[in-house]
Amino acid sequence: LIDLKKELEELEKSQNGVKEKGLKFKEQIAVGFKSLDEICNTLDKQEKESSKLLQRITLLQSGGGDKSNDAVVEMKQKIQSIKTSIKQSKKTFTPETGGVFVRLFLGQVNVKHYREGERFRLKTEYEKFKFKTNPQFILFVALLFMFPSNSFITTSWQIWLLYYYVTLALRENILLVNGSSIRPWWIMHHYLSIAGALTNLLWPLSTSFTDLLPMMTMFSGAQGIVQILTNRYQQGQLYRMVAIGKANIMDVTSENMISDPGWTPSALFLLPFLLFVHCFQMYNGFVFLTYSYFKYHTYYIEWQVIACGLILVSLGIGNLVTTSNIYLNKWKS
Amino acid sequence: LIDLKKELEELEKSQNGVKEKGLKFKEQIAVGFKSLDEICNTLDKQEKESSKLLQRITLLQSGGGDKSNDAVVEMKQKIQSIKTSIKQSKKTFTPETGGVFVRLFLGQVNVKHYREGERFRLKTEYEKFKFKTNPQFILFVALLFMFPSNSFITTSWQIWLLYYYVTLALRENILLVNGSSIRPWWIMHHYLSIAGALTNLLWPLSTSFTDLLPMMTMFSGAQGIVQILTNRYQQGQLYRMVAIGKANIMDVTSENMISDPGWTPSALFLLPFLLFVHCFQMYNGFVFLTYSYFKYHTYYIEWQVIACGLILVSLGIGNLVTTSNIYLNKWKS
Ligand SMILES: CC(C)(COP(=O)(O)OP(=O)(O)OC[C@H]1O[C@@H](n2cnc3c(N)ncnc32)[C@H](O)[C@@H]1OP(=O)(O)O)[C@@H](O)C(=O)NCCC(=O)NCCS
Ligand SMILES: CC(C)(COP(=O)(O)OP(=O)(O)OC[C@H]1O[C@@H](n2cnc3c(N)ncnc32)[C@H](O)[C@@H]1OP(=O)(O)O)[C@@H](O)C(=O)NCCC(=O)NCCS
Repeated sequence: LIDLKKELEELEKSQNGVKEKGLKFKEQIAVGFKSLDEICNTLDKQEKESSKLLQRITLLQSGGGDKSNDAVVEMKQKIQSIKTSIKQSKKTFTPETGGVFVRLFLGQVNVKHYREGERFRLKTEYEKFKFKTNPQFILFVALLFMFPSNSFITTSWQIWLLYYYVTLALRENILLVNGSSIRPWWIMHHYLSIAGALTNLLWPLSTSFTDLLPMMTMFSGAQGIVQILTNRYQQGQLYRMVAIGKANIMDVTSENMISDPGWTPSALFLLPFLLFVHCFQMYNGFVFLTYSYFKYHTYYIEWQVIACGLILVSLGIGNLVTTSNIYLNKWKS
Repeated sequence: LIDLKKELEELEKSQNGVKEKGLKFKEQIAVGFKSLDEICNTLDKQEKESSKLLQRITLLQSGGGDKSNDAVVEMKQKIQSIKTSIKQSKKTFTPETGGVFVRLFLGQVNVKHYREGERFRLKTEYEKFKFKTNPQFILFVALLFMFPSNSFITTSWQIWLLYYYVTLALRENILLVNGSSIRPWWIMHHYLSIAGALTNLLWPLSTSFTDLLPMMTMFSGAQGIVQILTNRYQQGQLYRMVAIGKANIMDVTSENMISDPGWTPSALFLLPFLLFVHCFQMYNGFVFLTYSYFKYHTYYIEWQVIACGLILVSLGIGNLVTTSNIYLNKWKS
């Protein structure tokens, strides 16, 4: 019993210790965020000042005074570099809500993470999510192939797609705030896909639907396979970053970090698959549109046919342009 | 020009100052979160220890030894109070993902906020969202009344509802992690509502739909009005908290804070409206079910009729039980 009493006393002591630590932690965090506010305020001020300075210098330049021209040009360059550095700092520090889409779901709250490693965690979680859902994607496609007229399967698939694209768009917007250099098009791509999934969901089990379903399923299958390949590539990138020790000094934004791995063999390997699937997507969209055009006089064509067609064509074009752009950049570097 | 040069130099200096501050901020945050990890680890250990101690004491008690019985009972109580205090500390400190639903959308990331005032901000954002969307809710109901057979309006309404309930469920789960004492039923309520909205979305424009739409619209109207009233009440609560200065020491979880305002006139005023709308909801569900029962032989009844009926009845019963419980608690206190 005395033994127990002693242990209880120790537990009480350690509990008081934790309570103190907790208070201290709150203080530390409060102090930290106060200095964050100061930093953000200073950055805002600096931004204004540098803009004013730039204006004045430009005025001076246009006003003549050729003797000091070299000095003026130099000053201008300096200011420009200061401005980009301010912008970068703002990206690292200023709290952000993550754009309209995130705001719609989470409200006007900060989604920028300041804890070391938390940003990298966001990214790995994102790729892990894709890794886990890719087999589901393929499974759905297989089921659609086997039971094309089962409305339970098609509807589940449509709802699943809606969820899939919403969560991807949410996560990518949050990643963007946390320093990812993901191109805006991929997010736009997911907004369009959300619209597509909704359109699909509203499509009754009509003749046009059953006519076009095999085509859609085939495209989805191709897409699923390409997604698995790109996911493998992106996860490889993450491992590479861990390996070269960049994941720990994380801050994706830190200036000395270039996320683009360049013209690597694995990137090159992906290229034909990507090009194929983008072209297939466009072709698919054209099939939808011509279908609606030629069958127009035969029977009633739902608006969903045209909407899906337009969405598919836009997605195909956008993807093609963006991918070409990415690979052009890789090639140049 | 010399003037400009001076200013530029100052700007550069101030920029270096900010950079230093930024590094310091990162350090502070890192140190803070390190001590958070320590706190969480200690809490885990304490939890295990206290459970072990409790076991040993219970063993001792059952083993007899009546002389020291009083002391043992006292010790037991002490441990119990330590355990609840540990639980509370864990709720304040341990990072959490916000449950399956939030995890589905945001991934396995921490959604607990540690910055002072941020939790209160979550809550005000939540109520502000309801405040802003209530008029939209009412507007949709009005449009449905006026154009009951316009499929564009009904479909928009169904998609809007789906979005509405998804974002509410997300926000409430995040609030829960951040110390709100919102009852789990209200979150369950929104999951069911999501299911209901999906069911509605999949409901074709059939006879059963047009038969039951006026009833649904009427109920939605009543719900919209009651929602405005409860939102006013909840916003009043928030103002009250700001007024008595509790919003600033925020931590909704802080032990000395009781969020329930008790048996107030404004809460009492709400009661009849709430009871009415809950009963109306149940009644509505029954109408759906009896409709599906009696029309079963007349024409084809979609599964949506039965699903919506069941969902409405469950919602009505759950709401009624929870509201009664809340008011019973208020009355007792
Ligand atoms: C071509 C591709 C593999 C190149 O990847 P990369 O070498 O990492 O390209 P970038 O340098 O432009 O990447 C910059 C950032 O954007 C991310 N990113 C690139 N493409 C992305 C995509 N489609 N979705 C999400 N994130 C993407 C990268 O992970 C990287 O993130 P980080 O800054 O957080 O590290 C990639 O753009 C891709 O996957 N494209 C095809 C996507 C597609 O079409 N999918 C649908 C199949 S039909
Ligand atoms: C009856 C009612 C007004 C009481 O509110 P209250 O006095 O704040 O009740 P509680 O003390 O139980 O509230 C505890 C917490 O849950 C929150 N809460 C209570 N009911 C909620 C609800 N329906 N939705 C979201 N949050 C709710 C409160 O804001 C409070 O939050 P906090 O801990 O972050 O401060 C409230 O429960 C309510 O609005 N109920 C009816 C909801 C409803 O049926 N809506 C649909 C209309 S058909």
